[in-house]
Amino acid sequence: MSDLNVNGALTRRRGATLRAATVRAANGDSATGTASLVDGDVSLHDGQRTRESFLELAAAKSEKKKRRVEVGDRLSCHKAQESLLSSASGYRNYRGVINWCVVMLVLSNARLFLENILKYGILVDPIQVISLFLNDPYSWPAACLLIVSNVFILVALYTERQLSKGSLSEFAGFLVHCINLSILLTFPAAVVLWVPSMTSVGGAIALGFYTILFLKLYSYEDVNRWCREQSTAKAKKLSRSLSCPSSQQFKGGEQKVCYPGNLTIKDMYYFVLAPTLCYELNFPRSPKIRIQFLLRRLFEMLFFIQLLVFLTQQWMVPIIQSSMKPLEDMDLSLMTERLLRLAVPNHLLWLMFFYWFFHSTMNFTAELLRFGDRQFYNDWWNSESVTYFWQNWNIPVHKWCLRHFYKPLLRKGFSKMFSQSAVFFLSAFFHEYLVSVPLRMFRLWAFTGMMAQLPLAWLVGRFLRGNYGNAAVWISIIIGQPFAVLMYVHDYYVMNYGDGDLLPLTLLDEQ
Amino acid sequence: MSDLNVNGALTRRRGATLRAATVRAANGDSATGTASLVDGDVSLHDGQRTRESFLELAAAKSEKKKRRVEVGDRLSCHKAQESLLSSASGYRNYRGVINWCVVMLVLSNARLFLENILKYGILVDPIQVISLFLNDPYSWPAACLLIVSNVFILVALYTERQLSKGSLSEFAGFLVHCINLSILLTFPAAVVLWVPSMTSVGGAIALGFYTILFLKLYSYEDVNRWCREQSTAKAKKLSRSLSCPSSQQFKGGEQKVCYPGNLTIKDMYYFVLAPTLCYELNFPRSPKIRIQFLLRRLFEMLFFIQLLVFLTQQWMVPIIQSSMKPLEDMDLSLMTERLLRLAVPNHLLWLMFFYWFFHSTMNFTAELLRFGDRQFYNDWWNSESVTYFWQNWNIPVHKWCLRHFYKPLLRKGFSKMFSQSAVFFLSAFFHEYLVSVPLRMFRLWAFTGMMAQLPLAWLVGRFLRGNYGNAAVWISIIIGQPFAVLMYVHDYYVMNYGDGDLLPLTLLDEQ
Repeated sequence: MSDLNVNGALTRRRGATLRAATVRAANGDSATGTASLVDGDVSLHDGQRTRESFLELAAAKSEKKKRRVEVGDRLSCHKAQESLLSSASGYRNYRGVINWCVVMLVLSNARLFLENILKYGILVDPIQVISLFLNDPYSWPAACLLIVSNVFILVALYTERQLSKGSLSEFAGFLVHCINLSILLTFPAAVVLWVPSMTSVGGAIALGFYTILFLKLYSYEDVNRWCREQSTAKAKKLSRSLSCPSSQQFKGGEQKVCYPGNLTIKDMYYFVLAPTLCYELNFPRSPKIRIQFLLRRLFEMLFFIQLLVFLTQQWMVPIIQSSMKPLEDMDLSLMTERLLRLAVPNHLLWLMFFYWFFHSTMNFTAELLRFGDRQFYNDWWNSESVTYFWQNWNIPVHKWCLRHFYKPLLRKGFSKMFSQSAVFFLSAFFHEYLVSVPLRMFRLWAFTGMMAQLPLAWLVGRFLRGNYGNAAVWISIIIGQPFAVLMYVHDYYVMNYGDGDLLPLTLLDEQ
Repeated sequence: MSDLNVNGALTRRRGATLRAATVRAANGDSATGTASLVDGDVSLHDGQRTRESFLELAAAKSEKKKRRVEVGDRLSCHKAQESLLSSASGYRNYRGVINWCVVMLVLSNARLFLENILKYGILVDPIQVISLFLNDPYSWPAACLLIVSNVFILVALYTERQLSKGSLSEFAGFLVHCINLSILLTFPAAVVLWVPSMTSVGGAIALGFYTILFLKLYSYEDVNRWCREQSTAKAKKLSRSLSCPSSQQFKGGEQKVCYPGNLTIKDMYYFVLAPTLCYELNFPRSPKIRIQFLLRRLFEMLFFIQLLVFLTQQWMVPIIQSSMKPLEDMDLSLMTERLLRLAVPNHLLWLMFFYWFFHSTMNFTAELLRFGDRQFYNDWWNSESVTYFWQNWNIPVHKWCLRHFYKPLLRKGFSKMFSQSAVFFLSAFFHEYLVSVPLRMFRLWAFTGMMAQLPLAWLVGRFLRGNYGNAAVWISIIIGQPFAVLMYVHDYYVMNYGDGDLLPLTLLDEQ
């Protein structure tokens, strides 16, 4: 639908341009005779007309006539016509306005950058970054958690092996998987909450890794069960196996594995490292590692992570600190001003993070593993509805939700409406899990933010279309995030630094 | 040329969209089988594919086959493909980015507005506006100047009458016109400079009016002389008169006047009031006054003049005042920051002024006078070169320069380069005249600014094309103006308020 709209819009704009050209051609009538504009940089129609006039005059072979036309042109230099901005003129070509927008944005942000440097000086401090990961240099709890995660991976693999051999009943296997996955979510949360040397950033990274692992192992269990179900069906009906499709379906010359040939340590770790959450017996593979591509992605990874840290320290932190006082006092107009001030850097950081993670890092990993499917995101920047945005900005998670949560719910007979809400509920749970546990405080802002997407999606879908819908999606991204960030940061500061005990920079910014 | 480029660009973009659609269609392959996305708001290709698959399945009449396809689809959910942002994907559809620009601009400026109100409160003061025009409520020097201007108009008219009768020789007439026009420029300048009750704003308006009158009377003299030259030629050759073209050349049914029938008071005052600088014996007239159009332009005039005053008092003045200290101290980084800070409001005010004067006011006057030619500006917002901008943003002045200055110079045998530079020199002179005299200080900033357009035009025309040229023109407009404004305002403050004696607001803004 969206592509159709684009073509339609272009056709319309094209029509407008042609109309505008006609209007200009009509306007050009006054420019006859000799060189009609101050320099040679004239518009097409004027130029053509001038040349035509010259040819006519040459044909007439009459210097007197030329002189007469020139004088007549001199005497009458006005023509009945409308102003371009009047609706009656039919003129619609405002492509220069796009460049205007870009120039204005660049200039405004150049000013903000300069103002920031003048006000705060250079705030970047690499030592501070290290302290975000390490409270105690002899205790690395987040790294330990990452090593421990291998236990859950191996438990899942060996359970599947037993199930494939039939030495474990389906129900017992299901029970083992359930216990394994439950501990997988609760154990790191408990460690993050109660180990004092765990920092918030370290905890968030560890929990993020465990969440990804949870989704991967859930998919692993599901797919292997589907394969067993199929083998049973095949055994019953003696029909052709579908768990290992015939080789002509694949372009690559690589050997395809069939269930249970996939239950190896190598296959398992390839899946754990691959940039996807959905397990598949035979992933599409790229033919070779493109070194140039790999190095470009590596450079982007290194560059953007530096820029993210720089902008956070130099731009985000001062604004957040200066927002504490208005938030405490519940000063509404000052709060709005700080929110809007935070929105720009927060949004730019989010865009950079998106590119860094979903394009550079994931493509780097995929290239290294020769993983073929690089669809990590879709064209969410053109989304005209909130749902389109959530379906397209994070394709791995979207694919997982569709394959392992939404479709199974539909198959079990639940309604689309219910299943969709359930997906948002699950997403809200994980958002809250990834924020509240590392910060060691439970405020439900992230949960509310995710659940608020449902009524927002309904509102936008109901009332806004096309570019208005797209603008609404952008506004919700740009404004919604810093709102949640401010809420958490405020609560965190109040909890950890108490009233009036904020960092000294806060006071600098108040009059 | 520019229209051709637009069409070319649109065709290219269209091609890109089609390519993108193809890429999407290819991407859509994975979405077969049952409902493939979380909700009904899916893209065209996925939706079509889903429907096609359903039809196929219905035709196969096999529940088993459907089940098998579904399971096969479940098991294989990846496809070898590139990320959209990789250059290899061929994807180019970023139309959402335009909406992003607009949203970011609106949000940034909403924040600036709120910040301004919080920092300064409401600064708007209508009494202050009146004081800009009146120093002494019993002496209205600017208004008196406007009344005196009638003398010059009548002198020009009666000189022409004598010339048409032959009771004054061509040379004597030329001399009278020269003296009349010289006094027209010098007398109001002298009044503005030496009458103490004249304010800067009142002086600028009076001088602006006199400059317009100068250009109009110069045109009046030129056209009437051309008419006489033609009559003489006609009398010599007995050929058909061209000074009054035959009526079939005009669409309107109005009676056309011939020289010297145009030398009436009514005709003269119509020309003085009409929104053009080029005299013509028979101006194109619109058939009737459209009341709705007139009222809309009147409303715009009243609305924008209020907004201009509001934004100047609330936004421009505080920034200018806070820029005095950095300018005095020659603090370069702080000066740049203030310049960029001033650029946005200054530019918006200029855009509003442009619309207010060139669209609302001129169209209002034209509608009232049934003046037919409404081309007061052209599409300068799309200009890809500095010369195109100067040729198209102010059509009345451009037309005058072309008809009464540039072409006569060419006819006298001067080169294009010289004539073009002469036009810029004339323009620079009048810019300086309109700024320096009312401010009673001669700094040549406006003159330099106009003359700097020549090398700028050369640089932009030489090195930048298309959108880059357009962006360069925008930057020169956005940055160049506030630079000159700051220079003048700084000098004015230093001259009138001395060092350290700036208004109290200045101190508020410094840390």
